[in-house]
Amino acid sequence: MFEAPIQRLIDELSRLPGIGQKSAQRLAFHLLTVEEVDARRLAEAIVAMREQVRLCQRCFNVTDSAECSICRDLRRDSSLVCVVERAQDIVVVEKTGEFRGRYHVLGGAISPIEGIGPEQLRMRELVARTAAEGVKEVIVATNPTVEGDTTALYIARILKPLGVRVSRLASGLPVGGDLDYADEITLGRALSGRRDL
Amino acid sequence: MFEAPIQRLIDELSRLPGIGQKSAQRLAFHLLTVEEVDARRLAEAIVAMREQVRLCQRCFNVTDSAECSICRDLRRDSSLVCVVERAQDIVVVEKTGEFRGRYHVLGGAISPIEGIGPEQLRMRELVARTAAEGVKEVIVATNPTVEGDTTALYIARILKPLGVRVSRLASGLPVGGDLDYADEITLGRALSGRRDL
Repeated sequence: MFEAPIQRLIDELSRLPGIGQKSAQRLAFHLLTVEEVDARRLAEAIVAMREQVRLCQRCFNVTDSAECSICRDLRRDSSLVCVVERAQDIVVVEKTGEFRGRYHVLGGAISPIEGIGPEQLRMRELVARTAAEGVKEVIVATNPTVEGDTTALYIARILKPLGVRVSRLASGLPVGGDLDYADEITLGRALSGRRDL
Repeated sequence: MFEAPIQRLIDELSRLPGIGQKSAQRLAFHLLTVEEVDARRLAEAIVAMREQVRLCQRCFNVTDSAECSICRDLRRDSSLVCVVERAQDIVVVEKTGEFRGRYHVLGGAISPIEGIGPEQLRMRELVARTAAEGVKEVIVATNPTVEGDTTALYIARILKPLGVRVSRLASGLPVGGDLDYADEITLGRALSGRRDL
């Protein structure tokens, strides 16, 4: 339909998550009309990232050396590990400024529909770490979804017999939200997880 | 916030149209987790497109040689020119199979708000072509928006004194649509543009 080099770029762009055929087309033509140096800078940023960034050998966070800056930080509490689905979730937890332990990136959540079981995630590495690093508590910060909940229950089942405390982020009303707009499941969780004042 | 090479890619991605900070972040981490060869293929497709694709010197369509395949096609009627805003619009008109003339890509539409006047578009080239190529009719196929309509009126004002017939794509109800769902402006256009049966 389009000239071959354009079609090839459209095909590559439409493989990205959330980018459909139409968006890929718009992006390709955008990259065709901007200054050539700008288009090249994007291409170079992709290649540079893949060349310079690797995964922390301990927690699988992104890093430019063998271990990530959090794992290298001796002030962090190594007995406390926060389990997240993806590396980008670490930034979100870090922003709260309330967590002083280390992390463990699973690489996703258990999802039978998508064919993702515990063996597709970094569960074995998590179990190995809890023993090797003397982990006392694991806070499961997977997403508040069916998959995230399933993953949290699985982690509790394999780690609690090893004497590790396993906790889960609280579900409930978002701060600053309006009760009117809360869905019934969130409200149900907020009720069952109510705290005494 | 993120490791420098990741942040750099996020910055580059968020410069793309319709890609916000959050989407850019998701795309960057996606490109970090796919096979390296897949990430590289996207980067290479961007560079290859910029190296291989240029604009037709006659109509500013995309091409891999001096003139695009449509301008080179001797069976096309050179006295009839369809004016579009962007090169990708040509594909849409071509799909109808009802147009056998040539094209002219303006590079946008007149938009005082965005600071785009006739001199930012390929108007001078359009006027030069109509004389040089013996163009008898110009069909303005800019978008049915305020900007597209303004551009069409401007083209009519500069080309009609040169003895060129200037027409505009019909506005009206989309085929297969439902009268119930038509907005009042479209319906108004459909009424004023009604055809005798």
